[in-house]
Amino acid sequence: MSQESHEGGVPELGERMYALCEELFPICRSITGDGVRETLRIVGRHIPLEISEVPTGTPVFDWTVPKEWNIRDAYIRDPRGRKVVDFQALNLHVVNYSVPVRTRLPLEALKAHLFSLPDRPQLVPYRTSYYKETWGFCLAHERLLALEDGEYEVVVDSTLEPGSLSYGECVLPGDSTEEVLISAHVCHPSLANDNLSGIALATYLARALAGRPHRYTYRFIFAPGTIGSITWLARNEDVVPRIRHGLVVSCVGDGGGPTYKRSRQGSAEIDRAVAHVLAHCGRAGVKVEDFSPYGYDERQYCSPGFDLPVGLFERSKYGTFPEYHTSGDNLDFIQVEALNDSYRWISQVISILEDNACYLNTHPKCEPQLGKRGLYNAVGGSNDSASIQMAMLWVLNLSDGGNSLLDIAERAGIPFETVHRAASLLADAQLLTAC
Amino acid sequence: MSQESHEGGVPELGERMYALCEELFPICRSITGDGVRETLRIVGRHIPLEISEVPTGTPVFDWTVPKEWNIRDAYIRDPRGRKVVDFQALNLHVVNYSVPVRTRLPLEALKAHLFSLPDRPQLVPYRTSYYKETWGFCLAHERLLALEDGEYEVVVDSTLEPGSLSYGECVLPGDSTEEVLISAHVCHPSLANDNLSGIALATYLARALAGRPHRYTYRFIFAPGTIGSITWLARNEDVVPRIRHGLVVSCVGDGGGPTYKRSRQGSAEIDRAVAHVLAHCGRAGVKVEDFSPYGYDERQYCSPGFDLPVGLFERSKYGTFPEYHTSGDNLDFIQVEALNDSYRWISQVISILEDNACYLNTHPKCEPQLGKRGLYNAVGGSNDSASIQMAMLWVLNLSDGGNSLLDIAERAGIPFETVHRAASLLADAQLLTAC
Amino acid sequence: MSQESHEGGVPELGERMYALCEELFPICRSITGDGVRETLRIVGRHIPLEISEVPTGTPVFDWTVPKEWNIRDAYIRDPRGRKVVDFQALNLHVVNYSVPVRTRLPLEALKAHLFSLPDRPQLVPYRTSYYKETWGFCLAHERLLALEDGEYEVVVDSTLEPGSLSYGECVLPGDSTEEVLISAHVCHPSLANDNLSGIALATYLARALAGRPHRYTYRFIFAPGTIGSITWLARNEDVVPRIRHGLVVSCVGDGGGPTYKRSRQGSAEIDRAVAHVLAHCGRAGVKVEDFSPYGYDERQYCSPGFDLPVGLFERSKYGTFPEYHTSGDNLDFIQVEALNDSYRWISQVISILEDNACYLNTHPKCEPQLGKRGLYNAVGGSNDSASIQMAMLWVLNLSDGGNSLLDIAERAGIPFETVHRAASLLADAQLLTAC
Repeated sequence: MSQESHEGGVPELGERMYALCEELFPICRSITGDGVRETLRIVGRHIPLEISEVPTGTPVFDWTVPKEWNIRDAYIRDPRGRKVVDFQALNLHVVNYSVPVRTRLPLEALKAHLFSLPDRPQLVPYRTSYYKETWGFCLAHERLLALEDGEYEVVVDSTLEPGSLSYGECVLPGDSTEEVLISAHVCHPSLANDNLSGIALATYLARALAGRPHRYTYRFIFAPGTIGSITWLARNEDVVPRIRHGLVVSCVGDGGGPTYKRSRQGSAEIDRAVAHVLAHCGRAGVKVEDFSPYGYDERQYCSPGFDLPVGLFERSKYGTFPEYHTSGDNLDFIQVEALNDSYRWISQVISILEDNACYLNTHPKCEPQLGKRGLYNAVGGSNDSASIQMAMLWVLNLSDGGNSLLDIAERAGIPFETVHRAASLLADAQLLTAC
Repeated sequence: MSQESHEGGVPELGERMYALCEELFPICRSITGDGVRETLRIVGRHIPLEISEVPTGTPVFDWTVPKEWNIRDAYIRDPRGRKVVDFQALNLHVVNYSVPVRTRLPLEALKAHLFSLPDRPQLVPYRTSYYKETWGFCLAHERLLALEDGEYEVVVDSTLEPGSLSYGECVLPGDSTEEVLISAHVCHPSLANDNLSGIALATYLARALAGRPHRYTYRFIFAPGTIGSITWLARNEDVVPRIRHGLVVSCVGDGGGPTYKRSRQGSAEIDRAVAHVLAHCGRAGVKVEDFSPYGYDERQYCSPGFDLPVGLFERSKYGTFPEYHTSGDNLDFIQVEALNDSYRWISQVISILEDNACYLNTHPKCEPQLGKRGLYNAVGGSNDSASIQMAMLWVLNLSDGGNSLLDIAERAGIPFETVHRAASLLADAQLLTAC
Repeated sequence: MSQESHEGGVPELGERMYALCEELFPICRSITGDGVRETLRIVGRHIPLEISEVPTGTPVFDWTVPKEWNIRDAYIRDPRGRKVVDFQALNLHVVNYSVPVRTRLPLEALKAHLFSLPDRPQLVPYRTSYYKETWGFCLAHERLLALEDGEYEVVVDSTLEPGSLSYGECVLPGDSTEEVLISAHVCHPSLANDNLSGIALATYLARALAGRPHRYTYRFIFAPGTIGSITWLARNEDVVPRIRHGLVVSCVGDGGGPTYKRSRQGSAEIDRAVAHVLAHCGRAGVKVEDFSPYGYDERQYCSPGFDLPVGLFERSKYGTFPEYHTSGDNLDFIQVEALNDSYRWISQVISILEDNACYLNTHPKCEPQLGKRGLYNAVGGSNDSASIQMAMLWVLNLSDGGNSLLDIAERAGIPFETVHRAASLLADAQLLTAC
């Protein structure tokens, strides 16, 4: 699978990913409920997606699938009857998983249920209460300060009842049953970078892979954060041993980073592949960080009982930008070009996983004579030629059975793609054989 | 053993250590003799101390216990009969182990027996001649320059005769017969930082440990430098295999450093524990250095035939401060607060040794649900709570049997004490079991 | 073999090496032919040299020994009959391995056969065409620009016919059949730093080693680059397993560097020995670089089928100085002092290889008493004494069977020679035995 065949270079791909984010933005997602189902239905228009519904009460390792939450409306009316907080205007205004309530209460009592960000007074925070039955509203701090004394009417027209948890899977069989896992969470309501950008990128990546042959089987998981990946793992322990590489994809639509958090293993092939791509990506803001047990669903994939080689790919790191988990993470915060760059880098990572292999130099004693095979300055374009030439020497020198092409690319400081092209030329000339 | 239970936080502890230094300061110690015995007698008022007397001539590995040296008086009278150098005023004035002499001789001949420091003309140097029978005097260089020509009277009223070498041991049995060795040398005369500060710290540390239960057996050795530790090792080869960790403690009363010299092993648990404490101690001057075969008694403990995990803990490194081995290393040079800080850090090291352990996460597949056990934001005080929360995630993630709490603290960059508290909470909730 | 016995300290040695470069400079060498034979004949006046002639057509691994090339004359006459390019004035003017030609052609057609350096318009480049039968001339770019239109006469009076490839070997048997390989290429025409400096240094190094006993067998190879080392390896596969250490020596006459390129193994004893010498050589420009598969004959020695511990020793790195492979690399470019320094450093490397050994401390428990053996401050000259004293402590501490003297020198940060002297003193006192 060569890099050129990826849609990553196609500018309209970024626009398509952005358009998918736009379509998904208004939906009120949560860890269960119709918002997730509607999201999976839209993703399923682009790729083959199998939806699972796991009933409330199902035990999943140390957890239990919770009641299903749905919401029709929610608002607060001030003493003069004006809607001062309105779910219809922005679904972040309701604390996610709020239990139904219809009541009137004075401002002071109401305040115990109101959440705002004094340090970012114009932004509405995103809050949840999945495992404690309560209700609440989020609003801009400047709106909170402007509330007058008096009695307020509060309505949360929601349901929290036995139902099911929904997740979607897209499995693209490859030549091998060994799997690459790509995981995006689907539980955040109107937040664009976290997590619509990840959903859009994963969807279009799956679409591209569905259209061409590949070595690995690819499994894309679209599931609610934490409880979703736990549920998937609990129901798929037989799949786990086949997972060779994996990425959690989130916050890939802003212009920061890129940021990569290594898997718990630390130097798994996925860790080295991403680090290699980012080392050669030409961006100044690259950060490659060690694993830590806080973050997204890599927490579950990298729990010690699984210890999967799954890293986290982001642009700006979660929690480090002021828009994170607020109404500032909207469609203006994500960019077509950033989505496109993120897609291209992840595609390059996948090319490495696909193409990485170990070869044996068939003429290990002294250098073979490249000239008589037309391999000496054989490739046009002098800079490219020089680097292919050096890459051929590196591949010949290190192909002793103990080095993969990625090992060679790392040691030589040459982009993997160049090393891979050199290896292809050498294999064509029968100077390399498969290991 | 929790950190709070140490006396390290108690301000008067520094004052008590300083007072012990004051009491010991005037005594003329050497590698043998009554000065050492008097020192051990005073230490023995604070802790249970077993004194050993090893006769002159006893072979100890490649060495032989030397003759015992004692001194009553020594002085030099100038041609006018004035005492220009007087042992009674400062015991550093006599070269330690000087043989007895009563003679008169001209200044030029006398000078071959006089030692001074031209680059620090006001300080009296400390010199010894343990293994070459001679005599000499040390004096300030400005005093030397002021000596007039003429005949001088020299008296060294000392004895160098068969006797014994004395050392003291305080053994505090723990739950285990595995031992922690704390070693301080007791052979320097009126020098405060080197070595009274180490004697005082070791004494009060032993006193604290004697008053509470502990896992390890602690062995404190108060012995003359080099020949003392060699003698102890020669007579205790059966104990050596039980020593799991050790520290030589010296120069812990000045405000410099702290400085740690690693054991010969280099990454023994003691080396990592001290480095961890110092990395979190908040001081700018921390130095952690590799082992070298020059220094204090770690030279013997780390000789290749023993290779014990024994490091050297100091504030300013020996030999690097101008007061080192001179009359400048007096009671003004050491500080109550510095003694207190040194004590606290070594106590924290001991807490790590005591509390370090390896646990197994009982729910290794995915994260366990902390919330249902009251462990999610369970601890009051938001900063502390956040760090305990992170520490719990780290402990759960890494407790796979291959990582100790110190391994986890190092990888997480979190103080050991926080990691240990997190582990205790998790063990109480049966989320961890002993490895 | 002590360092002092080397001729490295002798100033006239540099002059002798320079004189040999002067003598060899005018000869038109190539990968085959009489230029190489004449070069080997001159080298053979200084050291015992066995010459091999390998016939054209002999297969050597993936290569074939090429036809032999010789040249008598070559020139270009301009339309006015003036010799504007003349082999007799500078043999670089002819593309090395040019086939014979006698023709007349217009300037435009001639230009396809002319090579110059637009960025260094006064220098004549060095070009070859070993494996493509063609002809060409090299000239200063300013000369090229001054050529007038018109018809030119071109003569290359060369032969390219079946013959043989010549190389020379000097083998100096040692106590052991294990070998140290020193390799210098002999295929460059009038270029002084690359490669006459290497030939001269290798010649005088062999001469010095021939005059004294040594532990290793030394093998000096003087062969044309690439095809020469390939030919040697193809004919000496039985020797290869005996090679323990090796150096390719080139560009050792300029004042830059020194530069060392590690063997493919990366931390072979030769790599560590050279790095150690250079770390202590007191020069600012030292560079120690990782292996790469581009360079001189280390490419062949370090091919994966051999993977010999052979590094490349240079002053300025090939390709990095503007005189490289041009007429600027002449006798003015190399310096007596630089040759002398290079010789001294390589001699020190050889001393390390010769003297490196592993000892056992016979008194591993505690330090032995140096004083009673006269080893305490035993050596006169206080600085030297102090460093020997420290070196003795290091050797005693680390001589546990697992550390060679080079290991000890590296860990102690003390020059190998000092460590070796300390070990000799300790061995004389029976405090060390052979491992």
